[in-house]
Amino acid sequence: MQDLNGLLEKRERLRKQMEFIVEVDKVKGIFRQSYLTDGSRHENDAEHSWHLALMALLLAEYANGKVDVLEVLRMLLVHDLVEIDAGDTYIYDDQANEDKHLREKAAADRIFGLLPEDQEKEFRTLWETFEAKETPEAKFAAALDRIQPMLLNYITDGVAWKEHGVSKSQVLGKNLHTREGSEGLWALMEDLLEDAVEKGFLRDA
Amino acid sequence: MQDLNGLLEKRERLRKQMEFIVEVDKVKGIFRQSYLTDGSRHENDAEHSWHLALMALLLAEYANGKVDVLEVLRMLLVHDLVEIDAGDTYIYDDQANEDKHLREKAAADRIFGLLPEDQEKEFRTLWETFEAKETPEAKFAAALDRIQPMLLNYITDGVAWKEHGVSKSQVLGKNLHTREGSEGLWALMEDLLEDAVEKGFLRDA
Repeated sequence: MQDLNGLLEKRERLRKQMEFIVEVDKVKGIFRQSYLTDGSRHENDAEHSWHLALMALLLAEYANGKVDVLEVLRMLLVHDLVEIDAGDTYIYDDQANEDKHLREKAAADRIFGLLPEDQEKEFRTLWETFEAKETPEAKFAAALDRIQPMLLNYITDGVAWKEHGVSKSQVLGKNLHTREGSEGLWALMEDLLEDAVEKGFLRDA
Repeated sequence: MQDLNGLLEKRERLRKQMEFIVEVDKVKGIFRQSYLTDGSRHENDAEHSWHLALMALLLAEYANGKVDVLEVLRMLLVHDLVEIDAGDTYIYDDQANEDKHLREKAAADRIFGLLPEDQEKEFRTLWETFEAKETPEAKFAAALDRIQPMLLNYITDGVAWKEHGVSKSQVLGKNLHTREGSEGLWALMEDLLEDAVEKGFLRDA
């Protein structure tokens, strides 16, 4: 009987993992405000997460201090899953940001709750650690999460900034913590924002 | 003078890295034969790579032997970049597969060639190691790369299989190496394929 129980438990574990893998496919349908570099359409969360993970591989050398790259990747791969239920909240939409955390917490309960208990805890902790921005890995991951949309905006002549009338002081205000993840990349972003204002991609206010 | 040279070198390094990061955005426009689980459209390579990376985090316990998860992730995040130039080659299109490797090699030269020399080597090696399917990590990564489209096909009532008239023996023939990456996951795929035939999603031949 023990063997059979063990077998059924294993099957149940795999069933939960597969259910989760199928469920998170929905993140490919959660669209962000950023446009792809060719300007053809908005980017979705799956594409964004992949791009950030690749950036982490390439740019880890610019993190403030040494970071565990695997931990950065784990956070980046998981950080937007809550948006399957909570939707993407535009960083410059103050009203939507008011109840963002509550909506995302409920989403985390449901979505990570599909997993076997040990992995539910693991993924939940990854998401919470990312959100708290306290560890060097979370700070670096959060910096990449901010730098990538700035880069896409710059490359597309600021189309998303223009659509929402975003100003340089708004961008600076919402992205200052990027500096805590990477002084080097933040310096590049400061130059980029200045240039974006000069080129008329971003409002100078 | 030394300081200035060092500074310019650093800037040139970061310029190359950023150029690469912008260039690979194009992978979001490389569409595969698989459909998203909701059947609404084809999946692209960026979404696919993100999904595989997440699966690697969740399913590493099923790899044959212990694998270095960071190495698996590094390969998965990079493995489809060559398709920016070479396009997606459908696994059951024998004619297109004839010159696939040549097309992809030329793509690797150009795309990885955008990077600073050390990272060009690093990414090139990751891609070649993935393609060779010899290390435990490459075998497991390759297994996930095959399992994910089977799963999407199954969930969407075999729509891509039906469009191309794919049969079970074709799927088995092209995916046998999946077993070398994970006996456990391959066993699940065998059940899934059998059920797909019973349900009429896949031709029984």
